[in-house]
Amino acid sequence: MYDRMQELGKEQMTRIHDASMDILKNTGVIFNEEEALEIFKKNGFRIDGKIVFFEEKDVEQALKTVPKRFRVYARNPEKDVEIGEDDFVFVPGYGAPYVITPQGDQREATMEDYDNFCKLVHSSKHINMNGWMMVEPSDMPHETVHLDLNLSNILLCDKAFMGSPVSRAGAVEGLEMAAIAWGGKEKIMDKPVSVSLINSLSPLQFSDEMAGSLIELARHGQACVIASLIMAGASGPVTLDGVAALQNAEILAGVTLSQLVRQGAPVIYGSTSSAMDMRTGALSIGAPELSMNISFTAQMARFYNMPSRSGGGLTDSLFPDAQAGIESALALYTAARNGINFMLHSCGILGSYIAMSYEKFLLDEETCGLIRHMFRPTPVSDDSIDAEMIKSVGIGGQYLTHPKTFKLCRTELYMTDLMSRMNYDAWTKAGKKRIDQVAEDKVSQRLAAYERPDIDPGIEKDLTAYVAAKKNG
Amino acid sequence: MYDRMQELGKEQMTRIHDASMDILKNTGVIFNEEEALEIFKKNGFRIDGKIVFFEEKDVEQALKTVPKRFRVYARNPEKDVEIGEDDFVFVPGYGAPYVITPQGDQREATMEDYDNFCKLVHSSKHINMNGWMMVEPSDMPHETVHLDLNLSNILLCDKAFMGSPVSRAGAVEGLEMAAIAWGGKEKIMDKPVSVSLINSLSPLQFSDEMAGSLIELARHGQACVIASLIMAGASGPVTLDGVAALQNAEILAGVTLSQLVRQGAPVIYGSTSSAMDMRTGALSIGAPELSMNISFTAQMARFYNMPSRSGGGLTDSLFPDAQAGIESALALYTAARNGINFMLHSCGILGSYIAMSYEKFLLDEETCGLIRHMFRPTPVSDDSIDAEMIKSVGIGGQYLTHPKTFKLCRTELYMTDLMSRMNYDAWTKAGKKRIDQVAEDKVSQRLAAYERPDIDPGIEKDLTAYVAAKKNG
Repeated sequence: MYDRMQELGKEQMTRIHDASMDILKNTGVIFNEEEALEIFKKNGFRIDGKIVFFEEKDVEQALKTVPKRFRVYARNPEKDVEIGEDDFVFVPGYGAPYVITPQGDQREATMEDYDNFCKLVHSSKHINMNGWMMVEPSDMPHETVHLDLNLSNILLCDKAFMGSPVSRAGAVEGLEMAAIAWGGKEKIMDKPVSVSLINSLSPLQFSDEMAGSLIELARHGQACVIASLIMAGASGPVTLDGVAALQNAEILAGVTLSQLVRQGAPVIYGSTSSAMDMRTGALSIGAPELSMNISFTAQMARFYNMPSRSGGGLTDSLFPDAQAGIESALALYTAARNGINFMLHSCGILGSYIAMSYEKFLLDEETCGLIRHMFRPTPVSDDSIDAEMIKSVGIGGQYLTHPKTFKLCRTELYMTDLMSRMNYDAWTKAGKKRIDQVAEDKVSQRLAAYERPDIDPGIEKDLTAYVAAKKNG
Repeated sequence: MYDRMQELGKEQMTRIHDASMDILKNTGVIFNEEEALEIFKKNGFRIDGKIVFFEEKDVEQALKTVPKRFRVYARNPEKDVEIGEDDFVFVPGYGAPYVITPQGDQREATMEDYDNFCKLVHSSKHINMNGWMMVEPSDMPHETVHLDLNLSNILLCDKAFMGSPVSRAGAVEGLEMAAIAWGGKEKIMDKPVSVSLINSLSPLQFSDEMAGSLIELARHGQACVIASLIMAGASGPVTLDGVAALQNAEILAGVTLSQLVRQGAPVIYGSTSSAMDMRTGALSIGAPELSMNISFTAQMARFYNMPSRSGGGLTDSLFPDAQAGIESALALYTAARNGINFMLHSCGILGSYIAMSYEKFLLDEETCGLIRHMFRPTPVSDDSIDAEMIKSVGIGGQYLTHPKTFKLCRTELYMTDLMSRMNYDAWTKAGKKRIDQVAEDKVSQRLAAYERPDIDPGIEKDLTAYVAAKKNG
């Protein structure tokens, strides 16, 4: 289809690939993790201290075994999701230390907030997977909070969820809890029940937590996003193509490790690289460069026949206002149209990742619904066009009472849950609320109406006992 | 490029075309205008009362002479615009009877409002053309207000503008005023200096005002948008492909008339068809069906090698809130990406066309800027990627102080005019303003800083005298 966004030709993508290969071969990537270095060494990679150098053939070999699509299994089999090719998932926000209140006040997030977001995901028509660390609870001990997050993820929501990449030990504990939920480690070894986020440290590094988690998760058949977040002009080149080459080098380094650990381990090509704001030096995720990078990322992932990840409903605004709406819609729509498969941060993020907002969550959620509806194909068959009906209604006629309208209106036309279509009089009578104020009311209603999904009481007991034992131990 | 929006194949577009031909041949279109009927009659069309029936060969003949692109000349030659193929323009909102105040109160629009919007367009970095009837001034006599709008369009802004299609006489008066501004009617006969909006009356009618205006404007070489606004499920079929066939019939009927009047008359294939809200029965322009129709419209126009028009920054919200941001961004971005050439309603509209908002105008304007930036192609050459630089910065290095960052940051990275990138502390110090509140301040600043563009005093005098004479006559 004609598109005013830049399409990369094969030759251009090859240029980006070649630049990445040059960087990987001559500059290399630091892996701050002993086993990672051992694995590379064992496979004949050149190593200098913690720097690993990659030959193109090694990367090509890894790319051969990466699956182009996979299924993530949910506790409720009806909610399994497919990731790759035409299939995509909306996943909520990730990593926010704060919550922005409906009054615009920033407060530290709590475990109750985390649970609330699990509940909203569970009852969401549009969010396909539960997240991880949607907020960072400030009222829980840092060392063990990942256990509580895992427990909430499994108990409060029956959708597939994101896993715990806090550290190698944390990843293992997440795997053990998943094994309890699925009735044994062998049950999840060949079927991913989680997707975990492994971030590089740009430029060209992986931390011990990330590399260690990646090794454990790949080894146990769990899916990982391998992602780069470059700030153009700060932690990477100021040009979009330079960012593409640098992030590609980082992602492919991680992908190569994953396939050395286990051939066929499901991994996702990920990026939320964006720009630095030149006035403040801070990361801007409302920047148009984010969407431009999303488009490049989607194209490069497809070049490698890999599933892809990007944000998301992202914004720099600290309030669910028009700016938040515009910036989030542009980025989320770009990701969804251009073929991203795993849309992290689809819902809730404000202020360049600093906070989640319940009201923004509901707004973004409706955006997800709008966007998915926009992708519905229309038959464009003679039957569906139905020129006979148009001729029979004729000049100056009306279609409102036509049987076909009655029959099809509920499937053809999107019904909003949140967005207002009131006229001025009705809006005035309803108190002239902005949509963020309407969302505030709906959040309370949604949480009040929440019902916990059923779970085998034995599994719940074992999970709770596991968490308690780890905390005491 | 891979795209999750539906791409119409040639066969599907031919099906839509064939359905339209069937409707035009067998049901026909009413033209409530004597000369229009005479023109069709003279050219051998079958007529029954006011109903005109079209043969496919007549439509095909008309399509042969429609230009695929054209230039609209501005009073300031630096601001001429190109419409067609890859070139597109953002044009402000149109037809709103009200203004929504920053407090959310609806008030009748005035001539002062109209002038203010002319001033905002003049000083806009992102809006490429001035509009028409951006608001309907309630404080001016209905019979002559089009003269005042024309005068403001020419005097207050030196960009190309939209013309007056209020009636045949109104169109002629607009032409006469343009002739004064350009130094004679012969000066504008072969160079369009205006684009006027000709709407059908769905289903399958053209009013006398619209048909009469179209005849005069086409005759004098002025560009027209020929547009349909179908409410799916009310004034047209509930299915998207049915709407496409019906609107296509209406648009092609108007296009055929334009080419019978003058072969090669510049016309634009237009639509803002959207859906009826099934709860209220009212038009919804925040609906996802709007964007889906925009995509179909862009593709059908390209099928006929014609320039295309759609909205725009459209929303059902009555306040410049997050809903307004989301809905407007989705529609405007769809139009711009999918190849629409004339984006009417790019800025300012609230509440399903009922009102303009100054604050929304500024928000949408920045969205236009964001979107145009997103289309900037990146070279993706070895020079531009610059792997050597990435290698020299190396592992863990920084790019902030690199000469290349200094050199390119102003062109590579979009600098916002309105959108906030403050952190929470800075935002708190600045009074925690929502972006609509920030926009309110900026509107006053923009209007205070406005400087009227120069114009030949003789021309200004003649224009003013023309308007006065017409009002007294």
